Amino acid sequence: MLELNMASPPAGPPPPPTAPTPPGKEQQAAGVGILLQISMLVLAFVLGHVLRRRKIYYLPEASASLLIGLIVGGVANISNTETSIRGWFNFHEEFFFLFLLPPIIFQSGFSLAPKPFFSNFGAIIAFALLGTFIASIVTGVLVYLGGLTYLMYRLPLGESLMFGALISATDPVTVLSIFQELGTDMNLYALVFGESVLNDAVAISLYRTMSSVRSNDSSGQNLFLVILSFLETFVGSMSAGVGVGFISALLFKYAGLNVENLHNLESCLFVLFPYFSYMLAEGLGLSGIVSILFTGIQVMKHYTFSNLSEKSQHFAAAFFHLLSSLAEAFVFIYMGFDIAMEQQSWSHIGFIFFSILFIAVARAANVFSCAYLVNLVRPANRQIPMQHQKALWYSGLRGAMAFALALQSVHDLPDGHGQTIFTATTAIVVLTVLLIGGSTGTMLEALKVVGDGHNGRLGEEGFEGPDIGTGPSYDEATSSGSKLQMKLKEFHSTASFTALDRHYLTPFFTSQNDDENPDEVTQNSGRTRELKSHE
Amino acid sequence: MLELNMASPPAGPPPPPTAPTPPGKEQQAAGVGILLQISMLVLAFVLGHVLRRRKIYYLPEASASLLIGLIVGGVANISNTETSIRGWFNFHEEFFFLFLLPPIIFQSGFSLAPKPFFSNFGAIIAFALLGTFIASIVTGVLVYLGGLTYLMYRLPLGESLMFGALISATDPVTVLSIFQELGTDMNLYALVFGESVLNDAVAISLYRTMSSVRSNDSSGQNLFLVILSFLETFVGSMSAGVGVGFISALLFKYAGLNVENLHNLESCLFVLFPYFSYMLAEGLGLSGIVSILFTGIQVMKHYTFSNLSEKSQHFAAAFFHLLSSLAEAFVFIYMGFDIAMEQQSWSHIGFIFFSILFIAVARAANVFSCAYLVNLVRPANRQIPMQHQKALWYSGLRGAMAFALALQSVHDLPDGHGQTIFTATTAIVVLTVLLIGGSTGTMLEALKVVGDGHNGRLGEEGFEGPDIGTGPSYDEATSSGSKLQMKLKEFHSTASFTALDRHYLTPFFTSQNDDENPDEVTQNSGRTRELKSHE
Repeated sequence: MLELNMASPPAGPPPPPTAPTPPGKEQQAAGVGILLQISMLVLAFVLGHVLRRRKIYYLPEASASLLIGLIVGGVANISNTETSIRGWFNFHEEFFFLFLLPPIIFQSGFSLAPKPFFSNFGAIIAFALLGTFIASIVTGVLVYLGGLTYLMYRLPLGESLMFGALISATDPVTVLSIFQELGTDMNLYALVFGESVLNDAVAISLYRTMSSVRSNDSSGQNLFLVILSFLETFVGSMSAGVGVGFISALLFKYAGLNVENLHNLESCLFVLFPYFSYMLAEGLGLSGIVSILFTGIQVMKHYTFSNLSEKSQHFAAAFFHLLSSLAEAFVFIYMGFDIAMEQQSWSHIGFIFFSILFIAVARAANVFSCAYLVNLVRPANRQIPMQHQKALWYSGLRGAMAFALALQSVHDLPDGHGQTIFTATTAIVVLTVLLIGGSTGTMLEALKVVGDGHNGRLGEEGFEGPDIGTGPSYDEATSSGSKLQMKLKEFHSTASFTALDRHYLTPFFTSQNDDENPDEVTQNSGRTRELKSHE
Repeated sequence: MLELNMASPPAGPPPPPTAPTPPGKEQQAAGVGILLQISMLVLAFVLGHVLRRRKIYYLPEASASLLIGLIVGGVANISNTETSIRGWFNFHEEFFFLFLLPPIIFQSGFSLAPKPFFSNFGAIIAFALLGTFIASIVTGVLVYLGGLTYLMYRLPLGESLMFGALISATDPVTVLSIFQELGTDMNLYALVFGESVLNDAVAISLYRTMSSVRSNDSSGQNLFLVILSFLETFVGSMSAGVGVGFISALLFKYAGLNVENLHNLESCLFVLFPYFSYMLAEGLGLSGIVSILFTGIQVMKHYTFSNLSEKSQHFAAAFFHLLSSLAEAFVFIYMGFDIAMEQQSWSHIGFIFFSILFIAVARAANVFSCAYLVNLVRPANRQIPMQHQKALWYSGLRGAMAFALALQSVHDLPDGHGQTIFTATTAIVVLTVLLIGGSTGTMLEALKVVGDGHNGRLGEEGFEGPDIGTGPSYDEATSSGSKLQMKLKEFHSTASFTALDRHYLTPFFTSQNDDENPDEVTQNSGRTRELKSHE
């Protein structure tokens, strides 16, 4: 039986220690801990609701949750809460990666209209792959140079690059919740969202590569390996996600579950598939985030979803929305609480200050150079305008992802170093979430990229309501004559997948034909031609 | 940072050990582990569906899940799976008590028509409180005597009584899933269900008391304390559950969330309340099971639920159903896997054999003596018939609850003793779930207590479909003249609560009046008089 306790990562909380604590005592502590968490969640939801209703955008729900966590954590810290209760609030990277992140990412993919995402796919890849790589290297080198010149705490090159990698992960959670709240231009959102989701995969992959390079002392000629490893991860994860999605589509097409009184079974199975996709990728050593994103974004929504009974469709949509709302609020509370509870080494104020400066520089290097490259390739009417570039630069919030990796670095690095990185990351996360998060609304308005009319209600209806095609907002500057021309061009550029989809994929993976499900058709193949009516 | 790792019960899986495992390796193992769990869940659902469709009742879904877990666990055991993956399958009592049990119990309460439960309340309390106490003592004493006479492995009296307590918990999970599957008489179901839910609280409380008596060496004069402690726990938990339920009712009445586009917020809050009730009771050192049961059974369904928007009502019902189905299947798989993986000490076959004999005797002592007492008090037309008593005796399956407590006893008791108890419990759980579970259908048919007509479809529609009042099946033997008389009597006996409910509670806690929500009214106050039309 003792091996049971020693075994590494258990599925839930570890069994109570064999120390002479009275039976039932741990469970009571767990009860108090979870009770506190639920109360904070309820408070965050109620507060978020009130703030939204009063249109106070300086404190988005994400920031409010973070503040609640910080305040309660601070109080718990002062009041010397029992360690057994505190234990329930320590931020565990594994818990975050395995249980909180999947529903959030899936819901983002599930509720996103795939068109803007895929039409900006090249740009997203450029920002996420090349851009994050640039940002990591720039940050790492600057931090290393800063250390050499006694500007800040000195880290070896390997560790500086690890810090650069982990701090370059812009957080999908934070960005998503603030952008959805405010509603913004479709293309800009797609860029910011796509970049932040994919660059997590890059950042994790970079971080791990740097970490193994550091411990193996075999630097040099690794640049190529890093890129290769990322591409491998990315393509593999995407295939896994799409594969699982297609399997689920076939299952629901042929199992005949969409009848009365089997709704529960149908929903159970449907709900398990995204998680299956995430864990399959993780189990294969790939990126679960990328996998679940693709399962959600195209396949499950497009093919599997239409094989469900109507009742289960309503339920599944509400279920994923609920789960991701809970996970999202919880992540911020959890992070805030843990930040307040951890021992920070505030002696390195200089390190924090210069890190912030350097990541701002590195993000500029990322965004503006990649945008320049993208604009070189794109036609004149699809250029990324300067205000979008500025918005993209400004939106580089760091959140739970950087925090989780920094926490990991404390295990991976020698004592003082890991601690310094962790404190700096913590400070950057709190500052970016509170300051950038609170001012994003003002910034978007100043740059005139806040959604108008139909885009404005983006946040509340997921991304389903405004059925906007490839690039309506870019069109606004052009004359109505060239509009038609552009439509045709766009139709042409997406026609190959559309045709493949309509003639082969949809009939094969779904049980409905075009007439039965006019909604689906409008959304997916007929959209480009229907754009006119939306404007 | 190191304290972080040392802190006791963390919210999720503990952070990876600081040992020199390559980064990302634990997460990959976790991915494989969870992937395997999801695959088994999918398999269990599909298999369960196929078995149900073919009307194979010898292998209910619960048994099928247990078998899947046993088989996969056995294979993993032989194939020497990595310990880091195995770690994900060890059965953790805390995980079971804090995360798997609450949704199952809440759903049972939420979907149960409260009438049969409350009209049998006295009998349920007798079986659960007095009966479990009798069963524990009888089992404990017999095991002790068996040891003294060299019939079986010898345990001290204290430990024998601990074993008696933990093995006397008939499992609500197992019993519920099999009874709901088959559909049975309302009153019998209420008895079995009520007893099995409440006797868990008694068994845990008895187990803990015995355990502290054993370690303090202060036996004697504790009988009174045990009873007092149980009553305190029970009344306290019930009050906590009802209190949280009423608060939630008021919140949803006045918050004005039942409008368009706030469904998600409404659902989030609604979903958090039962868990809040569970954790409040646990945090206070009371019984979360009892608390969440009462939150679910009467208050949230009756008052809070009717304050929700219609869309959220549909969603919440489906949500809790989904969650409990997943948790239920998972419990059995998880238990099966762990049983196959644990080191069992099969040298004590004698102990197992005699334990089974003794618990059968103890259950008879429980059921028949309590039924005798209940029948002394009840009027002639409400006697518990002999076949119900026999069915009740037969339904004493032991499941996850006994298993979790036995796992705990391995920590609490000296080496060999805890192991023997654990192995015996394991054997009893597997035998009762597979044998009794598989033959319950035959038994219920032989005793002629299987639901007919409207009762038969109990399992599929939750307990909502057949709106049957206090005791229709007992009526069947009586003439139609005395039926009317009995109806009046029943109406009288429940009138006080009905009146209180209609005149004070419903108007205070809900926003609807009788006309607005005819369904609710029919279900709760008008039911007794509407019985005629259902028959």
